[in-house]
Amino acid sequence: MPEKQYVTYGCCGCGCGTELPITGCRFSLAPMCDDFADVILDAVSKVDTAKVWKQTDKLSTVYRGRACHVEDAVKACFVHAYRGGLHMTMEATFSKGCPGDIDGDSFLTADDTLCNEPKIADIHFPVDCKIALYPMGVSDYMSHIAHIVNHAIDLGIYAGSAHYCTLLSADVQALFSYIGKVNAYCGENLRHYVFEVTMSVNSPTK
Amino acid sequence: MPEKQYVTYGCCGCGCGTELPITGCRFSLAPMCDDFADVILDAVSKVDTAKVWKQTDKLSTVYRGRACHVEDAVKACFVHAYRGGLHMTMEATFSKGCPGDIDGDSFLTADDTLCNEPKIADIHFPVDCKIALYPMGVSDYMSHIAHIVNHAIDLGIYAGSAHYCTLLSADVQALFSYIGKVNAYCGENLRHYVFEVTMSVNSPTK
Repeated sequence: MPEKQYVTYGCCGCGCGTELPITGCRFSLAPMCDDFADVILDAVSKVDTAKVWKQTDKLSTVYRGRACHVEDAVKACFVHAYRGGLHMTMEATFSKGCPGDIDGDSFLTADDTLCNEPKIADIHFPVDCKIALYPMGVSDYMSHIAHIVNHAIDLGIYAGSAHYCTLLSADVQALFSYIGKVNAYCGENLRHYVFEVTMSVNSPTK
Repeated sequence: MPEKQYVTYGCCGCGCGTELPITGCRFSLAPMCDDFADVILDAVSKVDTAKVWKQTDKLSTVYRGRACHVEDAVKACFVHAYRGGLHMTMEATFSKGCPGDIDGDSFLTADDTLCNEPKIADIHFPVDCKIALYPMGVSDYMSHIAHIVNHAIDLGIYAGSAHYCTLLSADVQALFSYIGKVNAYCGENLRHYVFEVTMSVNSPTK
C-alpha cells in the first residue's frame, strides 16, 4: 500500500511568510437566478486580466499579482456581474504573505496603469458587506482588526459589529476604495494576512 | 459634531480569547435559482434550533452554543436546502474564542442529544468544498493547519491544495463528520480560531 502523502507548510512551520510581494484574491460569484452560469461567464469574460495571474477551479477564481491590479480585476468582475434587481453575492478572500507562495511573480513587474478602472469608475450601486481580517502569526491581531474597522467608521461606511464579522454598507466605488486601503495597510504592517469580504447586492431581506 | 464612536477589541487588545466555551457559525446559503428565497426560507424553517442561540441579518444567519449542536443545526440547514440538480453554495464560518464573546452562554447547558441528526443521518449527496483554518494569535499556526489538512488526507476526502485554501470532495455525511473533528481539535488546542468552509453542490463546472 502506498504511503500517504502528507503536507508540511512553510519553510519552518512558523508562518514566516513569503518574501514575494504577491497579493491574491480567491473569489466566487453567486447570482441567485436560473441563468447564473451566463451571468458569471459574461462577467468573467469582460475582465481585462492582462496584469494578473489567474486560475479558475470548480469553486472559485483566483487572481494574483500586484495589489492594485488584483483589486482592479475583482472589482471589474463584480461590477460586470451586477444586474438591477438580481440578488447576488461575491465571497472574496484577499491575502498576502502565505508561506510557500511562489507562483505568479512574473506579474509583479506590471506598471501602475489599471486595465479595468476607466470602464467601471462611473458605475454606482449600493452594496451590503461583511468583512473579517485575520492577521496571522501575531499576538496583537485584535489591534490591527480595530484599526481597519475604525477606518471604515472614519469613512462613514461602517454598519455595525456582529458575531465573527463587521458589517459595512457602501456604494461599490467607496467599498473597493476601502478594500484597497485595507490591503495597503495590511501589506505594510503584517507579514501574512487574510481579509475576507462578502458582498451582497439586491437582497430581498430588509 | 458628535465624536465618532470607535471600536476597541478584547480585554487587552492581545487576543486573549473568551473564557466561555461558545462555538458559533455564521453561514449564508446561495441557491442559484430564481426562487432562491423560498429554498432558503424552507430550509431554515425545518431546522430545530432548540439548542442554539440564533440571529439572522441581511447577509447571514448565526447559530451559537455547544459545538455539537451548532454543527447539527448548520448541517440540517444545508441538507434541507439541497435539491437535486440545483447549484448551491453555503459559506460557513465556524469560530470559538473571539475576545469579548459573551452572548449565548445560556445554551451551553444543553444536553448531548442532537435535535436534527436523526432526520438527516441517512441523506447522502456529494459536496465540493474549500476550507481554510485561521488559528489566531499564535506563531505556529501553519502546523495546526497542516494537522487538520493531514486529517482530511487520512479520511480520503482531500482533493488538493490551492492558493488560500484546501479543496475537499466528500459525501455530505463525511464532510460534516470532518468539520466536527476540526472544531474539536481546534477547540482543545487553540484559544481563538476561525474555520472557513465553503460548500458547493451540483456545480455545472467539471
